[in-house]
Parts: sequence; C-alpha cells; structure tokens
Amino acid sequence: MMDATTLNEPAFGPHSLNKYASLMASGNGYMGVRATHEEDYTLQTRGMYLAGLYHQAGKGETNELINLPDVIGVQIELNGVPFSLLSGHIEQWHRELNFATGELRRFVVWQSPCGAQFAIESRRFASAAQPELFAMRLIITPLDSEASITLVTGIDATQTNAGRQHLDETQVRVFGHHYLQGVYSTQDDAAEVVISSFCHVSGEAQCNVTAKNRRLLQNSSLTVAAGESVTLEKLNWITWSDDRRVDVDTLSRQNLEALRGCASLGYDSLYTASREAWRDYWQQSRIEVESRDPRDQQALDYALYHLHIMTPEHDERSSIAAKGLTGEGYKGHVFWDTEVFLLPFHLFTRPAIARQLLRYRWHNLPGAREKARRNGWQGALFPWESARRGGEETPEFAAINIRTGVRQKVASALAEHHLVADVAWAVVAYWHATGDESFMAHEGVDLLIDTAKFWISRTVECHGRLEIHDVIGPDEYTEHVNNNAYTNYLAHENVAQAVHFARHFARADEAFYASAERFLERLWLPVCDKNGVLAQDDTFLAKPAIDLTKYKLKAGKQTILLDYSRAEVNEMQILKQADVVMLNYMLPDRFTPQECRANLAFYEPRTIHDSSLSKAIHGIVAARCGDLSQSYQFWHDGIDIDLGEEPHSSDDGIHAAATGAIWLGAMQGFAGLTVHQGALKLTPRLPESWQRMTFPLHWQGKAMSCTLTHQHVTVKTSAPVSFWLFDQWVTVHDETTFTLSGFILPAAGTATTEGE
Amino acid sequence: MMDATTLNEPAFGPHSLNKYASLMASGNGYMGVRATHEEDYTLQTRGMYLAGLYHQAGKGETNELINLPDVIGVQIELNGVPFSLLSGHIEQWHRELNFATGELRRFVVWQSPCGAQFAIESRRFASAAQPELFAMRLIITPLDSEASITLVTGIDATQTNAGRQHLDETQVRVFGHHYLQGVYSTQDDAAEVVISSFCHVSGEAQCNVTAKNRRLLQNSSLTVAAGESVTLEKLNWITWSDDRRVDVDTLSRQNLEALRGCASLGYDSLYTASREAWRDYWQQSRIEVESRDPRDQQALDYALYHLHIMTPEHDERSSIAAKGLTGEGYKGHVFWDTEVFLLPFHLFTRPAIARQLLRYRWHNLPGAREKARRNGWQGALFPWESARRGGEETPEFAAINIRTGVRQKVASALAEHHLVADVAWAVVAYWHATGDESFMAHEGVDLLIDTAKFWISRTVECHGRLEIHDVIGPDEYTEHVNNNAYTNYLAHENVAQAVHFARHFARADEAFYASAERFLERLWLPVCDKNGVLAQDDTFLAKPAIDLTKYKLKAGKQTILLDYSRAEVNEMQILKQADVVMLNYMLPDRFTPQECRANLAFYEPRTIHDSSLSKAIHGIVAARCGDLSQSYQFWHDGIDIDLGEEPHSSDDGIHAAATGAIWLGAMQGFAGLTVHQGALKLTPRLPESWQRMTFPLHWQGKAMSCTLTHQHVTVKTSAPVSFWLFDQWVTVHDETTFTLSGFILPAAGTATTEGE
Repeated sequence: MMDATTLNEPAFGPHSLNKYASLMASGNGYMGVRATHEEDYTLQTRGMYLAGLYHQAGKGETNELINLPDVIGVQIELNGVPFSLLSGHIEQWHRELNFATGELRRFVVWQSPCGAQFAIESRRFASAAQPELFAMRLIITPLDSEASITLVTGIDATQTNAGRQHLDETQVRVFGHHYLQGVYSTQDDAAEVVISSFCHVSGEAQCNVTAKNRRLLQNSSLTVAAGESVTLEKLNWITWSDDRRVDVDTLSRQNLEALRGCASLGYDSLYTASREAWRDYWQQSRIEVESRDPRDQQALDYALYHLHIMTPEHDERSSIAAKGLTGEGYKGHVFWDTEVFLLPFHLFTRPAIARQLLRYRWHNLPGAREKARRNGWQGALFPWESARRGGEETPEFAAINIRTGVRQKVASALAEHHLVADVAWAVVAYWHATGDESFMAHEGVDLLIDTAKFWISRTVECHGRLEIHDVIGPDEYTEHVNNNAYTNYLAHENVAQAVHFARHFARADEAFYASAERFLERLWLPVCDKNGVLAQDDTFLAKPAIDLTKYKLKAGKQTILLDYSRAEVNEMQILKQADVVMLNYMLPDRFTPQECRANLAFYEPRTIHDSSLSKAIHGIVAARCGDLSQSYQFWHDGIDIDLGEEPHSSDDGIHAAATGAIWLGAMQGFAGLTVHQGALKLTPRLPESWQRMTFPLHWQGKAMSCTLTHQHVTVKTSAPVSFWLFDQWVTVHDETTFTLSGFILPAAGTATTEGE
Repeated sequence: MMDATTLNEPAFGPHSLNKYASLMASGNGYMGVRATHEEDYTLQTRGMYLAGLYHQAGKGETNELINLPDVIGVQIELNGVPFSLLSGHIEQWHRELNFATGELRRFVVWQSPCGAQFAIESRRFASAAQPELFAMRLIITPLDSEASITLVTGIDATQTNAGRQHLDETQVRVFGHHYLQGVYSTQDDAAEVVISSFCHVSGEAQCNVTAKNRRLLQNSSLTVAAGESVTLEKLNWITWSDDRRVDVDTLSRQNLEALRGCASLGYDSLYTASREAWRDYWQQSRIEVESRDPRDQQALDYALYHLHIMTPEHDERSSIAAKGLTGEGYKGHVFWDTEVFLLPFHLFTRPAIARQLLRYRWHNLPGAREKARRNGWQGALFPWESARRGGEETPEFAAINIRTGVRQKVASALAEHHLVADVAWAVVAYWHATGDESFMAHEGVDLLIDTAKFWISRTVECHGRLEIHDVIGPDEYTEHVNNNAYTNYLAHENVAQAVHFARHFARADEAFYASAERFLERLWLPVCDKNGVLAQDDTFLAKPAIDLTKYKLKAGKQTILLDYSRAEVNEMQILKQADVVMLNYMLPDRFTPQECRANLAFYEPRTIHDSSLSKAIHGIVAARCGDLSQSYQFWHDGIDIDLGEEPHSSDDGIHAAATGAIWLGAMQGFAGLTVHQGALKLTPRLPESWQRMTFPLHWQGKAMSCTLTHQHVTVKTSAPVSFWLFDQWVTVHDETTFTLSGFILPAAGTATTEGE
C-alpha cells in the first residue's frame, strides 16, 4: 500500500526509555498503551489509558486519566536469570513502530550474564478494527543450548498515576487455564473497568495462577531446546462503563465473550483486520512529500499516526488530552490545544470528527455556564483544563517558588480566558469547512452566543471605552494584565461571529444584539505602532528585557524558573510564546503582512518558546510573510519537540498539539491553506528542499487531492470546487493542473498575496 | 563491648534483594525501614512504616500499615550513567548489618559500563536514642579519573502498598537549600504525617529542588577529582499524629525544629548516641552461646535485633505486626503471635514491655466485646487480625481456588477463636513472671473475665456435655470443626484462671462463678487414646492421609494449594501446623511426656509446617521429650525460615513470631525454662554442639544471669531467688554454681523430669 515510514529506536538506553514509550505508543482513540518493554526497568513508566476515563484520587487532586492495570509486563526468566537489557550483552537490537500498520516490533539477541544467547521477539498492536482489543505476541528462542524459561504475566493492578490510586479491585478470577479477568471500580464508584486477558504459552508449559496484592498472574515454566521457540500469545479486552444501568456482571460476561471470540481467531488474523483499518485511515489523510530530508515524511507520518490514535472517534463526551493517550502529562486534560491545534486537521480530512470535538464542548456548556456564573459573569466560561464532565480541572499548584520555598499557584483557571474565544473561533472554522447547517443552527449558535455573552459581561468601563482586565493570554509568563491583544481581538471576533450567526439562524433576542453591538463598537482593540508592532498588553512594552539566549537554548524546559520566580518573570519582557504572533496567525485578515513581519521580528527575541505551541505558529506566520527558510527551520524545531535528540522531552507523553502543528505547518505554512472570506485558499510555497507535496483535502463535502511542486499545482476533486489559488478564483471540475508561472507569486522575503 | 555478630549479604543478586531488605531492615520500634539500596531495582520493594499508623485504602480493603513516602532512594548518576549493580561490573562488594550498633553499611567498588571505577559507600541507622530520626550517609569516590556526579534524593510520595495509596499530599515545601518537608494526611483525614529531610552534599554542588508528581527532590551535580570524595548526608525526621488537638502547622514546625537540631550535630554524633542505646539493650537481653556452629550465635543476635526493632515500646496503643516493621506481609496486622511467640521474650527480659503489649489488648476490649455481641456471644472476642483500633482486620479473600477460578474466602475471622484464650494465657504468664498486682487486679482480671465469658457463651449442649463447635484451631488447613483439642483445653484453662483471679481480686459476681464452674465441669476435654494420641478434633482421625513428602520439602510455601483446593485439603489429614503439639507446648503440666512424644510422632508426618510457627514449637516439645538432636534440628529449621537459603522467604518482611521462636527454642528448649505451678523452672539440656550458654533472666523483679554448660549451671542474681532446677527447689542468694552430676538428669530419648 503506502510507502510507509517507520519510527526506529536506535539503541536501548535507560535515559530514553520513556521518550520512546510515548513516541511509539499504541492506540486507537479508545485506548492508549505506552510502548514499554515487556520487562521492567526502574525508570520505565508503564501506562494504559482509556479516553474519557478520569477520576480524582484524593484531596487536593484533580480528575486525571486513570493509569489502568498493566497487561504489557512479562517477567521473563531465562535459566533463572531475570531478562534485563541492563545486564548481560545486547548482541542485536531492532525496535520499530510501523506507522502504516500500527504494529510495534522489537527483536533482540541477548547474551545472558551466564553466557547463553537468546533471540527475543515481540509484536503488539491496539486494534484499529476492534477498539477494545490489545494484542501481543512474544517469541523466545534459546540460540545455543536448551534453556529453562519462565514467563509471568497477567493483569497488574499495582499501577498508579505517580502514586495516586484510582481503582478498587472488585474481583479477580480465572476461567480455565488461559483466561484471567480483573474487575475494578473507581474509588468514587462512578465507573467500572473490566480487563480480561487470554494468555497462552506454546508447548508443554507448567502453569499456575496467583492473585495477590492486586496482581493476577499466570506463571508458566518450560524447557526449550536450542533453536526451538516458545511463544506467548496474549490478547486483552478492555472495557469500561459509567452507565449505572449496566451491571458489572453483564459487563464482565460480555467482556469475556468478546475475548473468547478474539482468541479463536488468533494474533495474525486480528492483526490483518487492524491493518486494513489503518490503510483506510492513511488513504483519507496522508500527506506525502518528496524532500531532501527523509525525516520530513517521517515527521508527517508520525504526526498523523498520533493524530489518529489520540482521537476518541467513538465518543463525543471525550475530547483529546494534551498528551493524547500516551502519558500522564497534564493529567490527560483537554486544553485550547484541541480547538486551535488539532481540530483543523480533522476539519480538512474527516470533518465529522471535528464536529464531534465541538459537540464535546457543547455537552459541557452547563459546566461552563456555571463557572461563569460563580465568578459573576454571564454566558459560558469554559474551564482552562477539562476532563469528562467539563468542570474546572486545573491543578492548584505548579513548581516550587525558588524564593519562598512553597509551591506557586496556577492562575490559568482564574484568568486564562481566551479559551472561550478559541472555541468560538473553531466553531466558525467548522462552519466554513463544512457548511453544516444542522450543527450550526443548534450546537454552533449555542456555543457562539454563550461565549459572546461571556465576553460582553467580562468587560469593564475604563478610559471611556470597554476594556478586558486581569487576563492571561496564551503567553503564560505574563499574568494578570489588562487588554491582552490576543484576548481582546479574539473576543471581538467571537462576538462579531455570534451576532452574524444568531441573526442568520434567528436565535437571539434584541437585548443580545444590542449589548453585542455596543461591545463591538466600544471594545478597545490595541493598534499597531508606526513600526507595525502591536503591544501584547497595556504594560508589556514598559517592562525591562533581558538576554534570553541561555533559556532559548533549552526551550521547552522552563529553565528560566530555576533563576527567577514566576512573579519576577512576570515583570520582564519574557514570553513563553508570543501572543501577538499567535493573534496574527489566528486572524490573518486583520493584519497586513508588514505588521505580521514586524511583530515576528519584535517578539521572537523576547520569546523562549517554552511552550510546545510556540514555534510551529511562528513558522506558519513566517511562511505567510514569505520567509520560507525561517519557516522551514521553525517547522523542524517543532518536529524536534518530540522527535529530536533530547531524551526526556516526551517522558510523560507526546505533545499532542505539536503533532497537530506538524500538519498545520505543512498545510498552512507550505501549502498555504487558509480560509479567506469564507472560501478555501491555497498559496503554495514549498520549502526549497521539497520537490513535491501531495495531500487529500476535504472541503464543503468534496474530497480533493492536491499535488504541489515548485512548478505546478494539480487538484483532483470528487465534485466541482472553487477556491482561491493565490489571488485567482479558480474552479476545478475533475482534475486540473495549474502552472505556477501563470500566477503572481510572492517574492521570497516580501509580501504574500494575502490580499487579492 | 559485646563480641558482636553481623549479618552479611554475601553477594548482590536481583532475586535476594527483598529478602535482605527485610532481614537487614533498620528500626527502633517506632519506625521500620526496609534495607533497600539507594538506587532502584525493579524487583526491590521499598518500605518505611510507623508502628500503629494504619489506614484502609479503599473498598474491600482492610487497614494496613502505611508504606510511607520514601527517603532512602538516591538516584546516582556517574558521568551520565545511572548507577545500577545490574550493569557494569562489581569489583568489590561488602554489605553488613551490625547487630550491636544497628548500623547498616555497604561498600562497593563499581566499574561503570563506560569503564570508570567508583567506590560507593553508604551507612545508615534508625536511631535507638531518638525514635523519629533516620540518618544516612553516602560517600562516592571516583577512583581513576575526574567524574561528574549527580545525586537526586528527597521525599518520594509515589510509594504505595502494592498500588494501594493511603496518603494525600497536603503540602510540600523547602526551607533554605537543604531542608525539604512533606506533609501528608491519610485519605480518611484521621492522621497527619510529617517528613522532613536535611540533604547536604559536600563540595561545590549545583543544587535545585523540584516538586512534581508527589516527589520532592533535591538535585545536586558536581565534578569530583579522582581519589576525592563527595558525601551526601541525609537526616530524616518522621512524625505523625492522630490527635485532633494537635494542628498540622505545629506538627510541621516542631518536626523541622527537631531536624535542625540533629543537623547541627551531624551523622557521627547522632550515631554515637544510637549505639549507646543499643548497648544498653544488649546488656539486658543478649543470649550468648559457644557453639560449634557459629550460625547459632548469629541467629540469636538476629532474633534479638529484630525483637527489639519490631516492638513499639513508646506506645501501648500499638502492638507487634506479624512481620514487625520490615514489610507489608499480613498488612502489618497483629495476631496471636504477639502473645504466644513474642511476649515471653519480653516477660523474661523487660516485663514492662510485656505489660504494655497486654494493655494493647485491654485498650481494645470494647472492640472485642462488640465483635462477640454482633455474633451473638458474650464477653470479648478479639479480632483474628487487628490494627490500631482493635476492629477485625482479616482480609476477605485468600488465594484463587484452583477448581473454581475465584478467590477463596478467609474463614479465620469467623471461627479462629483460640486467640481469645491465648490472650488469657499470656495474662497468666505475665502474672507468674512479675507478680504485678496492680496490673492483675485491673487490666488482667478484666481480660480474664471477658475472655472467660466469651467461652462460656461459645459452648453448645451436645452429647450430654458442653462442646465447642465450628472452630478453626491454629492448624488453618482444618476448618470448621467441633471440639478442636487446642481450643477446648485453652478455653478451659482460660475460664479456670479467670475464676481463680476473679476470686483472688474479688472482681466477679456469683452468676459468673456459677456459670464458670458449670463450664469447667461440663466442657468436653478430649482424652488421649491408649497410645497417648489426642484427636485434633471430632473428625480428624477419620479423614484419609496422603504422602506429604513433596510439600514438606517446600514447607512454608503452601504448595499444597497448587494441587488441592482448601475444601479438599480440609477433608484430609493435612496440617499446616500441629494443634496437639502446640497444646502440649502451651499447657505442659496437663500432659505426660509419653503423651507428648506420642502426639509428636503421630502428627509430625501429617504436618507440612506451612506455618512459620510450626517447627519451633515441635522443637521445644522434642527437647522436653528429651530428643535433643531432633529439637536442635527443628530449631535450625526455624532459623532457616528467614536466614536460610530460600531467596524469597522473607520478601514481604521477616517472620516476627519465628524470631521470637528462636529465643523460645533456646530458652524453653535448651535452657529448659518453664513455669511450673507458678514457679520458675530450669531444666537445662544443651545441644551437643553447644559448650556454653549465658543469658539474663528477669523473674519477679530480680535480675538473674545464668550460664549453662554440659557440667554446670551458674546463676547470679540481684536478689535472692528460688526456683526449680530440674526437680530440686533451689535458692540462689548472690551467685551459685550447680554441678549437674548432683541432679537426676533426663536420659536422652527418655522421659524428662517434668514431674518431680
């Protein structure tokens, strides 16, 4: 099928265990399973998560994705010696995640400290065809002499989220010799989890099962001749329910029945079905590039692999966690990342998923309204971090204050309100891409009006105008400021769009229109200075700047907080990410290319890029400003957030938004995809090292396929489609190839053709 | 001072990590700290426990000793390579627990996988002088070239009891550069725990502190020249309170102040104070032997070391856990082990502690009365397993039933009632050893009467007599039987003693005496058959016997349950431990030597000794029967429960009762210590390989010191003392040496002089 790339772990190393456990995680949107090895390592963090399955573990904690009982672990003992790659000698090593098929394989030849050599091969996948299925196979071959082999595996419920336990063990039992089942309930009794494992060891293994200390384990021992193999096939079926009408016995029985069905098919057959499902996905989504740097295609495949496995297509009450389902970072909470960094991918490939992600917010409107009300505002104030039920889940504390020795409070839940406008922005983007009247007339307008009402109530009368005070913009190193440019502009757009769609669908009363019009007329929108620079907020430009070189070299690690407290950082021109550049990105029609360039030039030196959201957006804005080499560099820096050399960058999960940004950078930066006055627009500007870029595109119900080179643009479409190509309005009926020399192209380093 | 023995871990091995973590644990009765290495290993279970600090972690769980946040762990990175003895090469290894001083030391020379060599030395102790103090020192020396060294340590609250979390993290903070403090509360809010750590790294270390995911860690990095050393000194002060009148801020502040005081003294000075306290203990308690087998002295020192560190002298609301404070086995619960296996040691060395252990039961009389009442009986039914508050803590489930695949219920809480009589037995033993009128008149009689009332109500009228139905004796492989011999005899003794002391102290009414006398007259006491064999219960002798050889070879591991379900075991003559032998031991005056010998001969082949309580008692009864060689063998087998070769025997803690049994075996077996008609009796019978045995003995307020050889008995005393020496009543005023040839000694293999 596709010319698949793979992700290879170049060598085994204790420092990079968790990075690759995240990067190579298996999943299918329903479950995510970290790519930990069968054998334990002290620094290795196991993790299996189900989308939407959150729980609060104790006082002072917030809801977090539950780290479920482990099924991956296998204690392997070879001639009485525990198998560990830290001991003995690694003779051969190969570990590879195949993006095309979703299968992870490891092959090692290991010399035990006692001298005997073994080939150890393992394969696994989370089924793309049956979301509840996680399948594993382990094959061990003594290479030079007969060996006694012991394999201990099962369901290990000693797993915690860094010591926080969420589950009570309700029941463990065994069916026959090969089926183990554990039943767990969340400690608040709101949900039940059932895990059944079919564990089958080939040959004449001596086998017994123990249940002790939350571990239900099958212990198999046998002797294997040199050159022969023992195979462990382990199939796991994982279900949960928070529906009180489903009784746990039914859930357990159904779970076991489903697993028995899988066991009758076996690994190979189950794998074939999963691979087919993956093929369909890639056909609908893949970006293919011909680049001088083979890492570019790999990065795109990596991104789209993770965009798929992080997305809970099956459940509109779940959204996408900040680390997907690959780790416990940010406790599996949902941020604005979903709407701004992830939703566009779905919008232009499978818009039904984008709709579902917006419906997640719509379902949680009651909680958002409640949060607004409790704080004395109107409309809907979405929580800065949310889980399943839409309550505010932002943790209370962050790092230790280096001056006082106590932990610093997290202010985002109190003041980082731009999320409200970001959700509205995504609703409008969905409308443009789909023209989905039924969604827009109901959920869409609900979301727009409630978010607009929030902003209208959020203003204060000051300096003879309406201002928005005491907010935090995307740049979280600058807290509690007035008239944050990003926030004010996005709020203005939010209310304007709410008015537009409320009128269109006749969904609001005159009082709303009146207050909204007043807001739109009187809200203070900061303006660019004579050089084109827009002030991030009322006070930013008056603060002192310092040399950030040393911190920028360690971007993403927040090393500034080792030298300064947050309060001190707040009083300097130090940005985690640049709000104004982000604003230029979000509302391109509002700013001239000159202004964008001026803000990029002014803010970038003041930006550490400690947020993983930062560089990708800089890259897109740079591309739009015509600086392709800077753009390409930013795009690569964005790739390196997860795929770079830093061994601990992704320990607690991949950066979901950064994978979205890889797609965004390619599509919005290099293919020049934007929506201009409600219409699709392409402004291709391939990086110098790319010869060709091909991608599918879903627009207003039409399936398009585009191929870009430095000379041509070829568009195929399932139905006639009109769009802007550069500044020309073109229509394609079936397939058309445009020659770029027929268009006025932006000169490198000068203005793009954003206006036409 | 003393000619100390030590415990050495002969080599580093992943399989024996947890055995030595238990055997070499540090403690002082207030805290227990497992002897885990500074560096992590996947199979290594860390543990720190405070006596009496229990909590129930969730539904279906019982209260268990809380595994506290860890302070032992230090991540050591040498030139960027994590230090682990699984990798690289161990050039030198020495690890030793010094029983005399309570200090644990390790010295290793390690060659890193990169080739550089390092000497790594660590020392630690739980202070015997300041119970809240745990002190550590770590010294690292690069041997051949300059090295970069990183040490990460602090307070790690990700610890759980096999995945069960008990503590919420209330607050973490840092004071200056070197003081870390974590404040935790049990999830039920009943208790607060404060841990402060002073962490000081010598030299010019770069240092920062992070608090994330329940870990409060100091990270220190520095470069050390070849041949120079870096020293980490870490002092920890650990306090808790379940007194609601103490507010947590006060607790935290006092904790920090105490630690600051320690830090001003430093490791060496603190260690000196602790060593002095240990010296006092050994002077009061030590048994010294001259044996051909040097392991004998080591075993005695091992036992007395653990008997000291397991005993919460500071708190009469706590008793002794089944694994002491060395691991999580039996969840830290208190069993009859305390009264029967551990209390005698204290009785004859420091009787105030024995009094305190009995007061633990006395404090918990309300719970025991409540348990009796709820089950329709009178008096006090102590819980089979108890924790701090005296409620029933026996877990609901044991191992998986191999026939049904579901976990089998634990019946002990329902029917293993002999504990009630064991407590009464211990009260009487305390009275004999101390003559403590004030205790006996109040707590003692309370305990005797309430336990007697239970037995009186526990009988049923059957076969024209009173019987006790549906019980489990000490032999837990035989459940729900009628007229278990051990239970009936001990109950009879209990009621008889209650009547005796109630009359003596005029503490009961006539109704009690009347019902008690009726009970004593009419309770069925099974009698020995013509061969001297006493039936364990009404049905035992009718059950089939099977060959137990294969299971006896793996005594202690309950391998019988891999072949048979508990229900099946119950229907055969299969004993975990022999009730009748135990009965012969407990009430020696009730049985002739011939009967004891007959029962030993009959039951031993039917006994797997899967209980760690089994062999030691067999050994003492064998010694009393004159079979010294069998007795010595049983005693050695008892030593091997913890100190033997089996690498996993003590993974979840040492066997507290087995350490008591080492003392019992030496004193009651070889020194022939018994109480006969209320008087002290010595019947020395040293094993053939022992030349001399010296021990202190506390009797009725007098401090005695005895030296035994095969020819002589020398007794020194602080005040005149009379006792039975064999069958002669002797009095020692100051010091007397008796020549054994002046006594009628039991011939080997024939009757002892139990009667005189």
